Amino acid sequence: MQLSELFTPQARELAPPIWAAPPVAGAIPLISLAYGLADPLMLPGEELIEAAAQLTSNKIGEVLNYAPDARSLKMLIAERLRHEGVAAEPRQILVAYGSSQILGILPHVLINPGDTVLVEAPTFMGAVRMFARGGARLVGVPVDSAGLDVDALEATLRELRAAGVRPRFLYSIPTFQNPAGVTLSLARRQRIVQLAAEYGLLIVEDDAYVDLRFRGEPLPPMAALDTEGWVLRIGTFSKILAPGLRVGWAHGPKALIDRLFMFKPEGSSGPFVTHLVAEFSADGRLEAHIAVLRQHYAAKCERMANALRRELPEASFVMPEGGFFIWLRLPSGVNATELEPLAIQHGVEILPGSRCFSDGSGDDHIRLAFSETPAEQLDEAIRRLAGAIREVGSYLDS
Amino acid sequence: MQLSELFTPQARELAPPIWAAPPVAGAIPLISLAYGLADPLMLPGEELIEAAAQLTSNKIGEVLNYAPDARSLKMLIAERLRHEGVAAEPRQILVAYGSSQILGILPHVLINPGDTVLVEAPTFMGAVRMFARGGARLVGVPVDSAGLDVDALEATLRELRAAGVRPRFLYSIPTFQNPAGVTLSLARRQRIVQLAAEYGLLIVEDDAYVDLRFRGEPLPPMAALDTEGWVLRIGTFSKILAPGLRVGWAHGPKALIDRLFMFKPEGSSGPFVTHLVAEFSADGRLEAHIAVLRQHYAAKCERMANALRRELPEASFVMPEGGFFIWLRLPSGVNATELEPLAIQHGVEILPGSRCFSDGSGDDHIRLAFSETPAEQLDEAIRRLAGAIREVGSYLDS
Repeated sequence: MQLSELFTPQARELAPPIWAAPPVAGAIPLISLAYGLADPLMLPGEELIEAAAQLTSNKIGEVLNYAPDARSLKMLIAERLRHEGVAAEPRQILVAYGSSQILGILPHVLINPGDTVLVEAPTFMGAVRMFARGGARLVGVPVDSAGLDVDALEATLRELRAAGVRPRFLYSIPTFQNPAGVTLSLARRQRIVQLAAEYGLLIVEDDAYVDLRFRGEPLPPMAALDTEGWVLRIGTFSKILAPGLRVGWAHGPKALIDRLFMFKPEGSSGPFVTHLVAEFSADGRLEAHIAVLRQHYAAKCERMANALRRELPEASFVMPEGGFFIWLRLPSGVNATELEPLAIQHGVEILPGSRCFSDGSGDDHIRLAFSETPAEQLDEAIRRLAGAIREVGSYLDS
Repeated sequence: MQLSELFTPQARELAPPIWAAPPVAGAIPLISLAYGLADPLMLPGEELIEAAAQLTSNKIGEVLNYAPDARSLKMLIAERLRHEGVAAEPRQILVAYGSSQILGILPHVLINPGDTVLVEAPTFMGAVRMFARGGARLVGVPVDSAGLDVDALEATLRELRAAGVRPRFLYSIPTFQNPAGVTLSLARRQRIVQLAAEYGLLIVEDDAYVDLRFRGEPLPPMAALDTEGWVLRIGTFSKILAPGLRVGWAHGPKALIDRLFMFKPEGSSGPFVTHLVAEFSADGRLEAHIAVLRQHYAAKCERMANALRRELPEASFVMPEGGFFIWLRLPSGVNATELEPLAIQHGVEILPGSRCFSDGSGDDHIRLAFSETPAEQLDEAIRRLAGAIREVGSYLDS
């Protein structure tokens, strides 16, 4: 008798993950622009320790014993949402171990194998892979410099309706989109919310980067424009506090929040980390920290953009108004997947655009993260990238 | 169009949780013996803050940025397992947000609706509820003063085989069982492991309390006796460090560990909490802390036992060799579910035995936790309980 005979069909079907080999760098130490990590300089270690010490001396039983997650955190999240114009209540909020946990649970509540899910093209493939694991059929809707193309969305919805298909949801990153860096315009937000009501379309609005705006006025989230309960908004403390704490949240219709909670296998999300985030955030400390982050990342974005204009005038990009990424259109004829190993030989790691599309297209772009790399290394990183691109280019010319 | 039309069948079927009303105490402040919480006095707040400060000053990028869970923690768990005689490797270990997360994921990997799962009777219903949610048909196997009744287990396995049924697993708490407090004898452990090999039975060995032994020699876990890969052992840092951190683990056959990981929606378990547990535990600090805990809880167990012998000689119990609970057999005719509200009126909260059986039986017992309540309140708590029991008794006599 075999143990494997005991596995459920879905556990049998799934292949265990195969980890990609780490990049092999050349002679020089690799500078990575491939991942949306936080700048280690901006992780508020000392303040977090102070907050933790405060907690353990004042309410040790609440934070280190069995307990539900911190109610104060849900109240903080609701308050921040109300500040954005969302009529939020703590009971409509689910706190989770990072927004990735919520994206991982979504398929259980919303996706039957073969169901259609609409995603932006390009998009954050970390989310899309979880939907695909749930058996979703992915339909991409293009993104341009003003975000998701709403005409294309409407055409897709109409076609699907004609075919008798109701998509389970639209996954959208409206603000400082990952990877494209663009922001969905107000007019488009309004139209998408109208389409949602018209087509019974649930919008999963992932606003991970919304607080990291470098310039311009904040736009209302679709959750604030929607009056009929078609938006699940997902947020995280990873970009504005520390990814390593793993605290994210969702806000939306209570029936959906309740069901997401039912599929969260361990119940609530841990008194220690949730109280820690609430304690750190109290008395305006989070907002003050975010103000510092905005300036810091704005300067890094500017620095990378300047280096790109100087070193790679033949490549183009939409200057992002916030977030962690520049989405670079490569010079004509340069393919991102072919560029990747060459860039590593030149000492810089990038993310090929095809990793941001579910259909393998997109290799006319690369995603460059300016978030983690020390500011003083960004010039050198772009010089190396330019060297690698020119090497491909001269090969093309020859 | 309704949002609820978008829910998957399994999300529709599940009713959102209904929270029980909190107990209404009488005139005196309630003393609770109902829950297996840690003693707040024994939560090592200061040492945890020291460990956290160490981490953020030495490796802030590893603990507060995106990263997999701490490899040092898996090495620590493997080392502790090897100390118990289990040939453990870090790659056979899954770290999770509390052992409850692992119990919550198990059904995805092992249970199809209608599948049979064997559980001890009585058992920890927190686990069993998760199996039931996965559609399991629960079959109870009785527990006596030497733990799970192995003859009954063999008879059950034989009957099921005759009926063409292979149970998906046996869920067992062999050491200081919750709620019965009893410990599975070595001879029985050996026989269960033989039965596992003979019947292709997966043993889910939940050893949450194993480190909290008050007296006697440790017994080898079934995971150490098994040579054919039929044991998934589950452990936790909740009882020996702090429940509020939410760190548990599973060790077992790699094919099973890999699949559990695949159904862990958020991937790894958070660099901050996992590094924190590893850092706290380094250099023998965890083992020293456990030694203190053992003495502390042994004294509280003794104190509750003495109070029971003094105040309630007509009730009986097997003196536990470790853990958090005394499982009290009520005087004949006293029903635990009827006793519960009366006990609350007397100012003490208890867990009726029927909450530890999946079939509603068990109300000839109550579970009394001595773990959380301050030692100096245990005498008063048992006096109140005796008062409530005598009130039921006199009613019975009248």
